[in-house]
Amino acid sequence: MADVSQLEIYDTTLRDGAQAEDVSFSVEDKVRIAQKLDELGVHFIEGGWPGANPRDIELFQAMRAIPLHQATMVAFGSTRKANQSADADANLQSLLAAGTSIITIFGKSWVLHVTEALGTSLDENLELIRDSIAYLRAHGKRVFFDAEHFFDGFKADAGYALKTLQAAADGGAERIILCDTNGGTMPWEIESIWGQVKRACQVPLGIHAHNDADMAVANTLMAVLQGARQVQGTINGIGERCGNVNLCSVLANLAFKMNIPVWEEGRLRQLRSVSNFVSEIANLTPNKRQPYVGDAAFAHKGGIHIHAVQKNAHTYEHVNPESVGNRQRVLLSDHSGRSGMARKMESFGLSMSKDHPRLPELLARLKDLERDGYQFEGAEGSFELMVRETMGMHHPSFELLDLRVNVEKRHAMETPVAEATIKIRVGTVVEQTTATGDGPVNAIDNALRHALETFYPELREVRLLDYKVRVLAGSHGTASRVRVLIESGDHKRTWGTVGVSENIIEASWQALADSIEYKLLRVPAQGAVEERKGERV
Amino acid sequence: MADVSQLEIYDTTLRDGAQAEDVSFSVEDKVRIAQKLDELGVHFIEGGWPGANPRDIELFQAMRAIPLHQATMVAFGSTRKANQSADADANLQSLLAAGTSIITIFGKSWVLHVTEALGTSLDENLELIRDSIAYLRAHGKRVFFDAEHFFDGFKADAGYALKTLQAAADGGAERIILCDTNGGTMPWEIESIWGQVKRACQVPLGIHAHNDADMAVANTLMAVLQGARQVQGTINGIGERCGNVNLCSVLANLAFKMNIPVWEEGRLRQLRSVSNFVSEIANLTPNKRQPYVGDAAFAHKGGIHIHAVQKNAHTYEHVNPESVGNRQRVLLSDHSGRSGMARKMESFGLSMSKDHPRLPELLARLKDLERDGYQFEGAEGSFELMVRETMGMHHPSFELLDLRVNVEKRHAMETPVAEATIKIRVGTVVEQTTATGDGPVNAIDNALRHALETFYPELREVRLLDYKVRVLAGSHGTASRVRVLIESGDHKRTWGTVGVSENIIEASWQALADSIEYKLLRVPAQGAVEERKGERV
Repeated sequence: MADVSQLEIYDTTLRDGAQAEDVSFSVEDKVRIAQKLDELGVHFIEGGWPGANPRDIELFQAMRAIPLHQATMVAFGSTRKANQSADADANLQSLLAAGTSIITIFGKSWVLHVTEALGTSLDENLELIRDSIAYLRAHGKRVFFDAEHFFDGFKADAGYALKTLQAAADGGAERIILCDTNGGTMPWEIESIWGQVKRACQVPLGIHAHNDADMAVANTLMAVLQGARQVQGTINGIGERCGNVNLCSVLANLAFKMNIPVWEEGRLRQLRSVSNFVSEIANLTPNKRQPYVGDAAFAHKGGIHIHAVQKNAHTYEHVNPESVGNRQRVLLSDHSGRSGMARKMESFGLSMSKDHPRLPELLARLKDLERDGYQFEGAEGSFELMVRETMGMHHPSFELLDLRVNVEKRHAMETPVAEATIKIRVGTVVEQTTATGDGPVNAIDNALRHALETFYPELREVRLLDYKVRVLAGSHGTASRVRVLIESGDHKRTWGTVGVSENIIEASWQALADSIEYKLLRVPAQGAVEERKGERV
Repeated sequence: MADVSQLEIYDTTLRDGAQAEDVSFSVEDKVRIAQKLDELGVHFIEGGWPGANPRDIELFQAMRAIPLHQATMVAFGSTRKANQSADADANLQSLLAAGTSIITIFGKSWVLHVTEALGTSLDENLELIRDSIAYLRAHGKRVFFDAEHFFDGFKADAGYALKTLQAAADGGAERIILCDTNGGTMPWEIESIWGQVKRACQVPLGIHAHNDADMAVANTLMAVLQGARQVQGTINGIGERCGNVNLCSVLANLAFKMNIPVWEEGRLRQLRSVSNFVSEIANLTPNKRQPYVGDAAFAHKGGIHIHAVQKNAHTYEHVNPESVGNRQRVLLSDHSGRSGMARKMESFGLSMSKDHPRLPELLARLKDLERDGYQFEGAEGSFELMVRETMGMHHPSFELLDLRVNVEKRHAMETPVAEATIKIRVGTVVEQTTATGDGPVNAIDNALRHALETFYPELREVRLLDYKVRVLAGSHGTASRVRVLIESGDHKRTWGTVGVSENIIEASWQALADSIEYKLLRVPAQGAVEERKGERV
């Protein structure tokens, strides 16, 4: 790997990323993400637009108390309004009030936007750019200029687009960022236009790409090859419409494909964790097919692929998964065949040769379950129980005798009350308990634990960490089949379990019961029930 | 738009796409997708690998009875095994048995794979390629050759990689497809390597790209610029690991960005529908941020963006959404402000000026609800009801007095029984009904309809089309907050409604009740209840 490059990483997850559909960050969310980005090592964090969002004013206030080690906070806003002095312009004043040392302002480089969106004259627009930047500079700020719609503007009127850059340079901009705001530019256009801009503009350039034509990563890296000094983007590529360029892909490609690493070796091992963190805070399901950091990025399903990566991972992995904090996974399906099954079983400490006589039965059972909507990726607990059951190696720790759930709601505005009653047998002892909960599944969970904890005190350390529901068929309304995935953990490990049914209570029950059974697989029999020991083989 | 190009579109959704995690197609699924691809107009449909998957043998049998209008079915498989005559090779025989006029076989172009994965000699590998193709040609088949890992192979040993292409040409291959199997190649590498291959190989070339470095679309189009005659890919880019190149992006870029349209103008208006169809059959949640065809691809959230696209859509849309069967959407959030709210209301026929005195109250309520986890994108029904309620314009059609749901399961293996009892008041009439269902929500749905249909017979035409559950917080186990989205329809329209609660029954109730109320907004009061009319304002 080469020495660390001079490339600047400018993250706008908190500003442009927040423009994504379904994304809405609280001030606290933004603070937590900013800290995570700082840990990763990005150079600049665009926190928000204080002139447009009151919450962003709070953010910049809050960030003053948060020490950052590597990153610098940046406030974002527009140029001043026409026919308004800078001193009286609310947007510029709110940018100064944000108290950051750097301010990024955006201006119009496309004639269409000057006349149609801004509704001002071409000359006036140049003056707005120059004057707004000069004003902020006079107040001691470093200023980056985002040339909005630069590539579209250049294609429409190259001369005018370049004049807007000159105005920014005249105002004192320290960086000029060429933006593909609508995301429709092709990489070969970036290459050709960049060449022409370089000759005309002395200020170091940056690139800000959107992904509307599925080209944001290529466009960004093409700009870097052309000499771009700054890359703007977001974690996971979240942003307005199809999103901004995905910094995860950009950073990995720079390091592993272009030999232009931004940081010292090893730093990118955080990449997957940063990606997941942002998805979690943004409350977005992580994209499992995301390059480098997605769950499926190094997941092998085809039998030939599985067979080959077992000999040499390089055969079907373009980089080492650990280099971005990811890992190799082997998936199970009719594509994976006996190799995959045998390998998967090994990972559970259940060694089984490829020629084991029960293997075909196991593969057939797996296929049946998958057809019914089960999936065991992420549900290793249920997978192991299924294998043990099929092989006759499983002895349940408890038997369900009766389960009743009641939800009652009086009047439209009242929160309903959920109550579950459960009757189980452990060995020869029958136990019945009733518990309430925040919903029917939570009530069952509470009742089941209450009933079992006297027999298995180790269940007290089990926590349910996540509960996911997926509706499988899209065409049967409320009678749709659902898949429930539950993630549980104790202080040592986490494990996933799955249930499928047309009844969400039944699907949840399956996943809950599996979670408990799986935990009990790992603990030596103990507690009050001597009969149970006798039953076990 | 230029004349239709000679570029061939080769779809491998059914073969390589089926290698994606979570994807498993039945024979019937594959038949339906093949018909849809044929309608779109792809030239070749790779149906599967009969030598590896028994289900694929069935598919090729089934497809013989299905007339295709534009596409040709292709069977896929490997070269014959070493030390095995072609006549005795099960894989080659199953390819012939598939009965397609075209067969694609893949072979190794990378020394690493020849020695490590295949475990044969370099010369033997060349012979396998040449001989397998020649054998199929001798049996009257047209043969395409997939040069697996070509770019990695070329970088490792260009001379040998080119020899494998020569072997394919010698065998009689009609197309040679250069594969970036591991997906780690950069577009500038494609450009440079392609130039060298063109000089050495007379057979028309194709490109098969994977997306592991987020470069599949750029790599594919770079190859087209270099003269590639065939493009292989999948709808929505599904495939092993991070997926294959996304044909939706490729087709749209060819037509709208490169002036190399594959079909006559207008054909791409099917693109979004084809994309959604494949997601639906694959049972994958559509990627709303997918370029061109995703729900968010032309969705505007920032206030400035919304304001501008209302004047001229071109300001923030790189192509016309209708050209790919998509549409412009305006999202609501603190980013969108009064313009967005007023515009959204207009779309419901609720005109309201930007200066309406109740608008701030409405925006505040919207923000509160969004913070609680509500989202109204896709839930127009609940949105309109919320607006009417906030404005004092809503008069409920019924009042809930009591709701009880019971789920009972006896013994672990038994399917539980769900029963709901509901008491409502319409006007002065109180009605109580009990109904069972496939699960608690289905039971409530059945009971509510039963109770209301005597008052509102028009509810009989309402169908629940989809029921989606999203768990909002990832850290509270079974007590997590859930969002339920319901899509309903009658013979004229469809509408979405939403509910949020920690109790899934409560969240489902909200969405169900909204669905009914929304339907009743649209129908004139009728039926047996005269009192109700008196209550309405």
